[in-house]
Amino acid sequence: MKRRVHELLQAGEHGGVSSRVVDVFFVALIILNVVAMILETVESCRRMAPRFFAWFEAVSVFIFTIEYAFRLWSCTVTKEYRQPVFGRIRFMFTPLAIVDLLSIIPFYLPFLGVDLRSLRVVRLFRAIRILKFGRYSEAMKITGRAVASRGPELVTTLFLLLVLVLLLSSLMYYAEHEKQPETFSSIPASMWWAVATLSTVGYGDVYPLTPVGKLMASIIAVLGIGMFALPAGILGAAFVEEINRAPEEKCPHCGKSLGESFRSRSD
Amino acid sequence: MKRRVHELLQAGEHGGVSSRVVDVFFVALIILNVVAMILETVESCRRMAPRFFAWFEAVSVFIFTIEYAFRLWSCTVTKEYRQPVFGRIRFMFTPLAIVDLLSIIPFYLPFLGVDLRSLRVVRLFRAIRILKFGRYSEAMKITGRAVASRGPELVTTLFLLLVLVLLLSSLMYYAEHEKQPETFSSIPASMWWAVATLSTVGYGDVYPLTPVGKLMASIIAVLGIGMFALPAGILGAAFVEEINRAPEEKCPHCGKSLGESFRSRSD
Amino acid sequence: MKRRVHELLQAGEHGGVSSRVVDVFFVALIILNVVAMILETVESCRRMAPRFFAWFEAVSVFIFTIEYAFRLWSCTVTKEYRQPVFGRIRFMFTPLAIVDLLSIIPFYLPFLGVDLRSLRVVRLFRAIRILKFGRYSEAMKITGRAVASRGPELVTTLFLLLVLVLLLSSLMYYAEHEKQPETFSSIPASMWWAVATLSTVGYGDVYPLTPVGKLMASIIAVLGIGMFALPAGILGAAFVEEINRAPEEKCPHCGKSLGESFRSRSD
Amino acid sequence: MKRRVHELLQAGEHGGVSSRVVDVFFVALIILNVVAMILETVESCRRMAPRFFAWFEAVSVFIFTIEYAFRLWSCTVTKEYRQPVFGRIRFMFTPLAIVDLLSIIPFYLPFLGVDLRSLRVVRLFRAIRILKFGRYSEAMKITGRAVASRGPELVTTLFLLLVLVLLLSSLMYYAEHEKQPETFSSIPASMWWAVATLSTVGYGDVYPLTPVGKLMASIIAVLGIGMFALPAGILGAAFVEEINRAPEEKCPHCGKSLGESFRSRSD
Repeated sequence: MKRRVHELLQAGEHGGVSSRVVDVFFVALIILNVVAMILETVESCRRMAPRFFAWFEAVSVFIFTIEYAFRLWSCTVTKEYRQPVFGRIRFMFTPLAIVDLLSIIPFYLPFLGVDLRSLRVVRLFRAIRILKFGRYSEAMKITGRAVASRGPELVTTLFLLLVLVLLLSSLMYYAEHEKQPETFSSIPASMWWAVATLSTVGYGDVYPLTPVGKLMASIIAVLGIGMFALPAGILGAAFVEEINRAPEEKCPHCGKSLGESFRSRSD
Repeated sequence: MKRRVHELLQAGEHGGVSSRVVDVFFVALIILNVVAMILETVESCRRMAPRFFAWFEAVSVFIFTIEYAFRLWSCTVTKEYRQPVFGRIRFMFTPLAIVDLLSIIPFYLPFLGVDLRSLRVVRLFRAIRILKFGRYSEAMKITGRAVASRGPELVTTLFLLLVLVLLLSSLMYYAEHEKQPETFSSIPASMWWAVATLSTVGYGDVYPLTPVGKLMASIIAVLGIGMFALPAGILGAAFVEEINRAPEEKCPHCGKSLGESFRSRSD
Repeated sequence: MKRRVHELLQAGEHGGVSSRVVDVFFVALIILNVVAMILETVESCRRMAPRFFAWFEAVSVFIFTIEYAFRLWSCTVTKEYRQPVFGRIRFMFTPLAIVDLLSIIPFYLPFLGVDLRSLRVVRLFRAIRILKFGRYSEAMKITGRAVASRGPELVTTLFLLLVLVLLLSSLMYYAEHEKQPETFSSIPASMWWAVATLSTVGYGDVYPLTPVGKLMASIIAVLGIGMFALPAGILGAAFVEEINRAPEEKCPHCGKSLGESFRSRSD
Repeated sequence: MKRRVHELLQAGEHGGVSSRVVDVFFVALIILNVVAMILETVESCRRMAPRFFAWFEAVSVFIFTIEYAFRLWSCTVTKEYRQPVFGRIRFMFTPLAIVDLLSIIPFYLPFLGVDLRSLRVVRLFRAIRILKFGRYSEAMKITGRAVASRGPELVTTLFLLLVLVLLLSSLMYYAEHEKQPETFSSIPASMWWAVATLSTVGYGDVYPLTPVGKLMASIIAVLGIGMFALPAGILGAAFVEEINRAPEEKCPHCGKSLGESFRSRSD
C-alpha cells in the first residue's frame, strides 16, 4: 500500500489513471494557489471576498501538508531512501522536498509568533513540477543540459559582466558625481545605472548629463550588445551540440560502444 | 469552370497569366485595405475624405465576400474537400478561411445590431497570403519548421519566463509596496514592471526605489539577458539543423548519391 | 598612364607604395570631412572657426571632384567598362560611383539655386571604402555573404515584424484611445509605440495605462524577445555555414570538383 | 628560494598547500579592496568609520607593493624573463604587471603632488586573476579564443554600427533640430540619441517628436535588432567551431585514434 501511495504522488506516466487524476488535481491546486496569492493583493478582489482567501489558503495548506506527510512516509519504497530514518532525512533535503516544506511552513509560523508570509512566494516553485509531464520534460532536460554543459563559460560571462559593472560604475561616479550629486551619490548608486544600461533596460531614472559621462555610457551601451551576444552565442553552440548528441556511438575500429564516459570526456 | 475559378483564386505559380493578375489584384486590395484602415484613424485624413473610407470599405468587403463565396463554391475540386457539404464545412474551418470570414463579417454585423468594428484588425492576417509568393514561401517554410522543431524547448523557455515573472513580481511587491503603494499596488501591478524589465523594454513608468528592490531588479535585468540568449540559442541550433537537412544530394558529374558520409564531411 | 591613374585610385594591394599613399590620403580626407561635418553643427566650434568649415569643405569637394573625374576617365581600362561612352555611363551607375557623385553634388547645387545641404550625409557612405583594406575586406565579405545567404528568411522575419506592428498597434489603438486620446490618437501614432516596444527600446514617452493595454503590451514585449531571437538564430546558422564552407569539394565517386554551382544548389 | 617565492605568488595548481593559501589570501584582499573602494563612496559608511578606509588602503597598498617587488625579483626564474635587467623590464610591461603597478601607484602620487585617486579603479582589473583558478581558466580561454577567432567580423560589425550611428544622427539632426533645438542641438548631441536607440537602451531623455523623426527612429530601432543579431550570430558560429575543435580523440577500448572522419560523423 505504501508503494501505491508513492506511485500516486509521483508525477508522470506510472500508476495508471488514478495517478493521473492525482497529478492533475495537484497541478490544478498549485495553479489555483498561485492565482489566489496574486489576487489577494488586489484591493478590489480582497474586498469582494474577504474571507475566501484565508479559507482557501487554510484548505490548500492542509492538503499540501497531508501530501508532504504521505510523501515522507512513502519515500522509503525507493532504493535511494530505503532506510526508515536516515532515508527520510535525506529525502527531506532534496530540492523538491525543501520547496514543499517551505511552501507550507509560512502558514504555521504565525502560530509560533513569527510572520514570514512573504515566504509564500516559494509556492511558485511548486509550479516547476508541471514541467514533469510528457514531452516538456524532455525539452526541460535538453534545455537544462545545454545550459549546464556551458556552465563555466556562462559563469565567466557573468563574472565579466560583474567586473564591467564595477569598473564602469566607478568611472561613472567620478565623471557624474559633481554634476548630479543626488543621482550618482555613491558607487552603489551608479551601479544601479550601470546594470540598467548594460542590460539595455534603461528606465530613464538615471542617465549621464556630462559629455564624458555620455561618451562612457555610449561605450557601455555598445558593450551591452556584446553582453547579449556572448551568452546567445555560447548557448547557441550548446544547443547545436545537445541536439546533435547521438544516443549511442561506436568506435570505428573495435566496434565497442564509446559510452557516456567517452562523450563527457570528449566535450 | 469550377476548376478554373479555383486556379484563379489560388495564390502561386499555377493558372497562367490571368491567375497572376488575380493574385496581384487581391494582394493590392488587401494592402490598400490595411492602409485605409490605418489612415481612417488619423483625424486629418478622416476630415479630408469623410465619405471615401466608408465607400472604400463597402466596395472591398463586397469583393472579398464574392471571393469568399467563389472559394467556398470551388473548393470541392480538390481531393481534400471533395464532398459537397462536409467538404465545404471542413474548408470553412481551415485557418485561412476563418481569417477570410472574420475579415468580412464585422461589416455585416451592424445591420444585425452588433458593433464589432475592432474585429476588422483580422484583415491584417490576410496579409500573410503575400508570403505565398515565390521564394519567400520557401523561407517561410524553413523559418516555420525551425521554430516548430524546437517548439517544446521554446514553450519551456516561455514557461520559465512566466514563473520568473510571477516569482519576481511577488518578491518586488513585498519589497516596494510600502514605499510606493501607488505603483506597486498589487502583484498584477508589479507583474507589469517585471515584464517590462525582463524584456528589457524599461519604459520608466515603474521602477524600484528601495535598495532591496534595486538589487532584485538588477538580478532580474541580468536574468533578462538570459531570457534573450536562451531562445536565440535554441533557434540558432534549430536553423543549423534545418539548413543542413538537405533531402538528397547528387554529384553533378556522375549522378551518384553523395550520401550521408559526404554530407557530414562537408559540414 | 590611364592604367596608372586607375591603379592609384583603386583601393587595395595593387599599385605599390604610391597607390597606398593615395589610399591613406583619401581615407584620411573622408574621415576629416565627416569630423568637420559633425563639428560644424556644434555651436561653440562654429563660433571658434567661422570661416574654417566653409573653406575646408570647398577644398575637399574640389579634391573629390577631381578624383571623381579621374575615376570616370580611367575606368575604361577595366574589361567591364571598356566602351568610352556606355562603359563610363554604366560606371556612373555603380553604387560607389553614385555615392561619390551624391557627396559632391550638394556643394554645387546652391549655385543653381537649390539647397540640399542635408544631402551631405551621403559623404558618410564614402567611409565604407575603408573596409576595403586588408583582412577586414575578407571579414566584410564573410559577413555580407552570411547575411545575403539568409536574405529571404531575414526578409520574412522583417515582414512578420511589420504584420505584428500593424496588428498590435491597431489593437492597442482600440484599447487605449479612449483613456489616452492624445498619445494613442491614431493607428500611426500607436505604431510608434509598437515599434518602440517590439524593439525593446522603450523610451517611455508612450505606454499603456489600461489593464487590457498592459496585458497586450506584455505579450508584445515577450514577442519582442522572439523578434531578437529569430534573426540571431538565422544569422548564427548562416555564419556556421559560411565558416565551414570548404573552398573546394570533390565527389567521393568520380573525384571531380563539385564547384560553386553545386554548393549553391545544396544550400 | 627565489623559485619558491615565484611558485607561491603564481596563481594556480603548482606549489602545494602554502601556494594555495597565498592565492586565496590575495584574492580575498583584492575583493576586500574593491568592496572598500565602493563603500568609501557611500556617505553613511564613510561617517561610520572615517579612519578605517584610509588605514585599510594604506595596509593593502603596502602588501601589494611588497607582492609587486617580490614578483619583479622572482620573475627571472622563468625562461622568458631570465635576464636580470632586460627580463625584469620586459616583465614590467606584461599586461598583468602593468595592472599591478597602476593599482598601487595612485597611492604614492599624492606625496608627489599629483592626485589621481580615480585611477584606483584599475584595481578592479586585478580581479581578473580570480579567473585563473581551476576550470574557469579553461572557460575563459575558450571564450577568449572564440571571440578572438571572429575578431575581424566583430570589428566590421562595430564599424558598421559606427557608420550607422553617424549617418542616422546626422539625418536625425536635420529632421529634429528645428522642433527640438535644445535636445538635438548638434550632431554629437543627436549621436547620444542614436547610440541609446541602436543599443535599445532608450532612457527616454531624448526622442523624436516630428513624424519624419519618428519614422527614422523606427527604422533605426529595427536596425538595432540586427545590431544584436549580427554579433550573436558571429559568436554563435565561433563557439560551435571552438567546441568542435577537439585536439585528438581516442577510443577508450582499443586506444586507436578515432580520426577526423569520426569527429565529423559524431557531430
